[in-house]
Amino acid sequence: MASRPRSDRSDRSFTAETVAIGSELLIGGRSDSNSLFIAEVLGSLGIEVKFKSIVGDDRGDIVQVIETAVRRTDVVIMTGGLGPTVDDCTREAVAAATGRRLVRRKEALDGMTARLAQWGRVPNRGQLQQARIPSRAEVLPNPVGSAPGFALRWKGAWLVALPGVPGEMQAMMRGAVVPLLTARLLSSAEQPPQPISRLVFHTWGLPEADVDAKLRGLVPKRSLVELGLLASPMGVLVSLTAKGRCSADHRMLKTLTEEVRARLNDWIFAEGEDSMEAVVGRLLSERGLTIAVAESCTGGLITHRLTQVPGSSAYVDRGAVCYSNQAKIDLLGVPPDLIARYGAVSREVAAAMARGIRQQAAVSVGLSVTGIAGPGGGTETKPVGLVYIGLDGGEGDVLVKEFRFHGDRSVIKQRSSQAALDLLRRWLIERGR
Amino acid sequence: MASRPRSDRSDRSFTAETVAIGSELLIGGRSDSNSLFIAEVLGSLGIEVKFKSIVGDDRGDIVQVIETAVRRTDVVIMTGGLGPTVDDCTREAVAAATGRRLVRRKEALDGMTARLAQWGRVPNRGQLQQARIPSRAEVLPNPVGSAPGFALRWKGAWLVALPGVPGEMQAMMRGAVVPLLTARLLSSAEQPPQPISRLVFHTWGLPEADVDAKLRGLVPKRSLVELGLLASPMGVLVSLTAKGRCSADHRMLKTLTEEVRARLNDWIFAEGEDSMEAVVGRLLSERGLTIAVAESCTGGLITHRLTQVPGSSAYVDRGAVCYSNQAKIDLLGVPPDLIARYGAVSREVAAAMARGIRQQAAVSVGLSVTGIAGPGGGTETKPVGLVYIGLDGGEGDVLVKEFRFHGDRSVIKQRSSQAALDLLRRWLIERGR
Repeated sequence: MASRPRSDRSDRSFTAETVAIGSELLIGGRSDSNSLFIAEVLGSLGIEVKFKSIVGDDRGDIVQVIETAVRRTDVVIMTGGLGPTVDDCTREAVAAATGRRLVRRKEALDGMTARLAQWGRVPNRGQLQQARIPSRAEVLPNPVGSAPGFALRWKGAWLVALPGVPGEMQAMMRGAVVPLLTARLLSSAEQPPQPISRLVFHTWGLPEADVDAKLRGLVPKRSLVELGLLASPMGVLVSLTAKGRCSADHRMLKTLTEEVRARLNDWIFAEGEDSMEAVVGRLLSERGLTIAVAESCTGGLITHRLTQVPGSSAYVDRGAVCYSNQAKIDLLGVPPDLIARYGAVSREVAAAMARGIRQQAAVSVGLSVTGIAGPGGGTETKPVGLVYIGLDGGEGDVLVKEFRFHGDRSVIKQRSSQAALDLLRRWLIERGR
Repeated sequence: MASRPRSDRSDRSFTAETVAIGSELLIGGRSDSNSLFIAEVLGSLGIEVKFKSIVGDDRGDIVQVIETAVRRTDVVIMTGGLGPTVDDCTREAVAAATGRRLVRRKEALDGMTARLAQWGRVPNRGQLQQARIPSRAEVLPNPVGSAPGFALRWKGAWLVALPGVPGEMQAMMRGAVVPLLTARLLSSAEQPPQPISRLVFHTWGLPEADVDAKLRGLVPKRSLVELGLLASPMGVLVSLTAKGRCSADHRMLKTLTEEVRARLNDWIFAEGEDSMEAVVGRLLSERGLTIAVAESCTGGLITHRLTQVPGSSAYVDRGAVCYSNQAKIDLLGVPPDLIARYGAVSREVAAAMARGIRQQAAVSVGLSVTGIAGPGGGTETKPVGLVYIGLDGGEGDVLVKEFRFHGDRSVIKQRSSQAALDLLRRWLIERGR
C-alpha cells in the first residue's frame, strides 16, 4: 500500500510529526516529554500531531525518519542532536536528507556569540559547529541557550530542528516556530484551522469498564469529537478532543462536556491540569479548615502530595508516619491494648489514629491510613492490599472505610493515598462551607 | 535517498522497532514506558531497538507505520489497540497492511474463554472480536488478561502485536516473544548475537559539566561502547552501552566500568536498577541501625522514599512531617525560643529537629530537613531553595549541611530528599559496620 498523501490544504487540516533524537531515549532513563508540549502548542494552532518518532544519534537512521515524516505530514518538529559534541548529528542528517550543504551563518554565529558573551565566554570549536545550518534554511534564534535551531521547507513540508533541552525548546516553539507556521503555513489555508481542544476529566473509584458503560453512546457516530479513556493506579482519565475542523465540533464539545459531568458526577475529582491534592487544598482553604495526617502503609506519601501544592502550609499542620507500633502509641496516643486486640491494620486502629492526630495537632480534620503494602506481611485474613482509611472531623464518630487493593507495593501506596484524599474530598463537599 | 536495507544476517546483528498505538499517547496523559521494557528484553537477546514510533488509533496511520517499520528493521513489536472497543484497530490494521484476512482462531478463543471462566465470566461480543487474528499468524497466549497477541512474518520481518497493559505486555514478552524470536529468528544467524549490555551509574552532587570533565577521554575513539550522560533533578546518570557485535566490546565494557567507578568514586550512589533508598536501606540493615525522619519542606517525601523499599519496616521507625512551628515543638521538642531566635529554617533548628526525632523515637539515627520550597516564603537573606539537612547519629554533635537549590517547588523537594539521603549514605559508609 502506498503512503497516504498529506491532507489536502483546502480542508484546512494540517498534520505534524515530532521526532525526538537521542540514543538515551531509546534505551531508558528518560521518556520523551518534549513531544507532549509540542503537541499542545501545535494543537492550539489547529495542527494535529499524528505520529511521534524516536531515533538514536545515528545519521543514517535520522535521515530515514526525516524522509518518512515529510512524506506523511505537513510539519516535522525535530528535537535534540544540535549540541556541540560529536554525537550531535541532526544538522548533518538534515543536510544529507535534503541534499543541502551546511553553511556557517552569520545570524546564527552572532546570536550565539552575543549569548555566550553575556556569560563572559567566547564560542569554542564545538560551538562554532552549531552555527553551521543547511543552506537556505531560516535560522531560529535560541533566547535561552547557545544552539540555534533552523527551519526549512522540503518536499512540501516544514522541517524544524530545535534543541532537546526542554527550556530552550519551549522558548523557541513559542518565540519562533509559532510565528513562522502562522505566517508561512496557516496563512495558505482559505480559513485558518480551529485550535484542537482537549478536555480532561480525572475520575477515581470506578473501574474502567464502569466508566466506559456510563459513557456509552455519548459521542454521536460521525462526530469528530473523540472520547478517550485511560486507566492508571490513580484512576481513570476521560478525555474529549475536538480536532478543529469546524466550529460545530467545538459547540458539540461544550455539550458533551456537560454530559460527561452529568454522567460521571462526583466520580470526577478534577478537570484539566487540576490535581486531587490541589482540589482538596482549595476545599480546606475555602472552609478555613486545617488538617493533620497519620500514615502507616502510605509512608508519608499523602502528606508529600498535600504539600506539593504551593501555599499548603496554610492548612497542613503536620503528618506522622507511624511505621512501628510504638510510634502509633507515642505520636498518636493509640492505646497499646487496641493494637494487641485488633492488630495494627484494623478498623479500630485506623479510627484511633485519625482521632489521635486530630487531637494532638489541634486541627479540624485528622486523616489516617493503616494497611499492608506488601510484598511481605500479609496473612489469610489480612492479605496484602487490605487498607483502612479513617477520617475524624471532630463531629461524632470517626469515619472508617475498608479497601482491598491489588498491585505491587508502590501501586498499593499510590491507590491508598488516592482513596484517602478522595474520602477527604467527598467529606469536605458534603460538609459544605 | 532510499531506505537503508535491514542488516545483513551474517554480521549477527538484528534490529527492532517498537510501535505504541493509542491516541492518548499522542496528546498527553501518559508517556510510553512499555518501549523501555521491550528495548531491555530485546537487548538481552542482542536485538537493538533503533526506532520507536507512536501512532493514534487510526487504521490508515497504523498501516503507514507498520509498512515503514518492516522496511527498516527485523522485529516490530506493537503494543496497544487489541482491546474489545471500537477504538481498537491494531488487528484490522495488520490485516490491511499484510493483505491477510482476520479469522477467529480456536486457540485464541479457548485461551480467552478459560481465562474469563476463572473470573466467572463468559466472553462478550467485544471480547469475541479479540479472538480474530490475521490468517497464518501465531497466536500468543495472554496469561494475565483476556486479549491474545499474535506474531507473523511479513516482508522478511517479524511483526508482533501485544496488549498495551504493561503487566500483560511484560508477561507475553517473556513467555511468548522471547522463545519465538530465539527459535525462529536468532537461530538463523551463524552465531547468536551477543546481548546488548548497558551499565548505568547514578551520581549525585556533581553538575553535569563536572561529570563530563571527569569522564573526558574515557572511551577510545572507534570503540563500539557508547558513553551517555543524562542530567535530572535527582542527579546525573552515566551509561555505558556495548552493542553486542563482538566479545571484545564486552571486555572493553568491563575495563571501562572499573574506570568509571575509579573516576567518579563515591559520587556514584547506585548502579543499574538500584536506588538511593534501597542503598541506604541496605547500609542501615547491615549495621543493625534504625532511623526516624523529621521533615519540614520535603513534606514527607523522604519517609515516602525510604518506605518504598520492601522490608523497610525493619529499620524505619517513624517520620514526623512538621509543617507548623507548633508541630516542631510538639513532636520533636524543638525549643520555641530557638525558632524565635534563628527562624524555623536555620542550622540550629535543623540540628534540634534531628536530635529531637532521634531521642523521641529511641532510634540510632535521626535525619532532619528544614527549608523553603517556594514559590512563596523566601526573603533576601533566606531565599527560596535554602535548605538545611541535619543528621544525629547519637555520637557527638549533630551534622548539619546547608544547600541552595534551584527549581520549582517540586524540584526543590526532590533535590532536598536526594541530598538528605545522600548525606545519610555517606555517613553510614564512613561510620563502617
